[in-house]
Amino acid sequence: MRVLVTGAAGMIGRKLTGRLAATPRIGGRAVIALDLHDIVPPAAPEIAGVAATALTGDLAAPGAAAALAARGPDVVFHLAGVVSGEAEADLELGYRVNLDGTRALFDALRLADGTPRVVYASSIAVFGAPFPDVIPDEFHATPLTSYGTQKLIGEALLADYTRRGFIDGIGIRLPTICVRPGKPNKAASGFFSGIIREPLAGREALLPVPRSVVHTHASPRSAVGFLLHAAALDGARVGPRRNLTMPGVAVTVGEQIEALRQVAGEAPVRLIREAPDETIWAIVRNWPTRFAATRARELGFAAETSFDEIIRAHIEDELGGAPG
Amino acid sequence: MRVLVTGAAGMIGRKLTGRLAATPRIGGRAVIALDLHDIVPPAAPEIAGVAATALTGDLAAPGAAAALAARGPDVVFHLAGVVSGEAEADLELGYRVNLDGTRALFDALRLADGTPRVVYASSIAVFGAPFPDVIPDEFHATPLTSYGTQKLIGEALLADYTRRGFIDGIGIRLPTICVRPGKPNKAASGFFSGIIREPLAGREALLPVPRSVVHTHASPRSAVGFLLHAAALDGARVGPRRNLTMPGVAVTVGEQIEALRQVAGEAPVRLIREAPDETIWAIVRNWPTRFAATRARELGFAAETSFDEIIRAHIEDELGGAPG
Repeated sequence: MRVLVTGAAGMIGRKLTGRLAATPRIGGRAVIALDLHDIVPPAAPEIAGVAATALTGDLAAPGAAAALAARGPDVVFHLAGVVSGEAEADLELGYRVNLDGTRALFDALRLADGTPRVVYASSIAVFGAPFPDVIPDEFHATPLTSYGTQKLIGEALLADYTRRGFIDGIGIRLPTICVRPGKPNKAASGFFSGIIREPLAGREALLPVPRSVVHTHASPRSAVGFLLHAAALDGARVGPRRNLTMPGVAVTVGEQIEALRQVAGEAPVRLIREAPDETIWAIVRNWPTRFAATRARELGFAAETSFDEIIRAHIEDELGGAPG
Repeated sequence: MRVLVTGAAGMIGRKLTGRLAATPRIGGRAVIALDLHDIVPPAAPEIAGVAATALTGDLAAPGAAAALAARGPDVVFHLAGVVSGEAEADLELGYRVNLDGTRALFDALRLADGTPRVVYASSIAVFGAPFPDVIPDEFHATPLTSYGTQKLIGEALLADYTRRGFIDGIGIRLPTICVRPGKPNKAASGFFSGIIREPLAGREALLPVPRSVVHTHASPRSAVGFLLHAAALDGARVGPRRNLTMPGVAVTVGEQIEALRQVAGEAPVRLIREAPDETIWAIVRNWPTRFAATRARELGFAAETSFDEIIRAHIEDELGGAPG
């Protein structure tokens, strides 16, 4: 099968590429072509038996999506997009990339031959406060960011184009991905990863919110697992409601820190410094906390079951099996 | 205040224009200008003290929305759109008018001076089966038509642009408008009005679905009431969740017919002929039935409380007070 990945140069895109390089199969079928697209040049690995091609461009530019669709993908992982903070800071950029780019891709696939499985990376940012204690699958999406709005619109297009038989879409609402590798960034959610990643590397981390904050996490490894599971899922089992809230581990920040202590001992925990930040707290307190994710679990999507596991996944995948 | 009505030549647009001609005030403020826009020329009535202007064009065409926004409306009633059947039959037309037209209007208002109240005619078509017995305000929107999808996207844009302070939007999800005046049309919902309107005019009406079908209705008079109430509503009371499911009268088709008997006697009821239609039934059985509409009621939106009232409103407004 031919596979297209948009946003292939991003963190999840690179992880997905790595997994497909290690095991070039989806749902029992061999991957023979892997088209890796991003607005910056993505790395195309050498994979035996797979034609991996790096493609660079702007999905929203005229003709760009049509050129990708003409390559005849059987599976599309649509990961491209600008992140939450950027979409909030630059309204027109966010709508152009996250809405126009997504619509251009879906329209190009509609007008091309075939009905590819399209796995769309949506986000729990489609939800906005206030919430019940546990958010059920039937809870309405009322985003409080432009990013969440754009993801919601992508979901609506995905479901309609699937219903009409133009594509065969599955939207997956990702929880916060933790532990995010790499350097600290300015994202309001950055500390959820920072308080684990930085101490494990022997560096101080700031904690800007109370330890009582509850949030749902899944590892980068689980995120890739969700994508691959969605790619192979029987659409008839899913039915017309094609956008699924993914499972994850709901914990307090205090429980995150306790898990760090269990896995790596007292030393890294001492590197976490409380530094209350009203700006971050104002954003975080409107974020969703726990999800039922009933349908996703029934459909076989699986995440970690404890935050210990999430930390261990980080140590295995990023630190060669031992804290630095 | 200056008022803009898009879709002014449609049934609801004409009713709204008529009401504003009779009472050119919104929320206690005098209307001094009434811009009536549609893709076909709308009628602009003579109203003392009000500059009524008929404007014709395609909202999605370059510059069209900007020209309307430049007229500096304080209140915009955005009613323009292609209907459900048309949006399903012609995908590109539906997305162009209902999505691109709406987005062009909101963007033009964003880029113009001022922060007008924008009342957006959404629809219960944003919902898709299966449903609980009574649909709560927090129920998720999973449309099963392209029309419903386009309305949902408009709602998402309205809420985001309101949150960011570009417009001051209120989206109202209208139930089925009944009794719809005029000739029978091909809409799958047409029979809900037809079985009342046609017999009252001495003509036969076909009933294509079982009498047990439950559906929620509001009169054209109530629809205009919703629009005007939304135009004057205090946005701070509404908060960030700007799209509201309107109240209505939930009745079975059998109860509709019983109400017709109560109001107009046995003769019109005898003109209803059962003519089961599998195609219409397949559509109608996926439609939502009853709504809680809790928030809308709390915010002062009011509909009829019985189907008798809906029939009497039709007789008063369309038949000069007595059945034909």
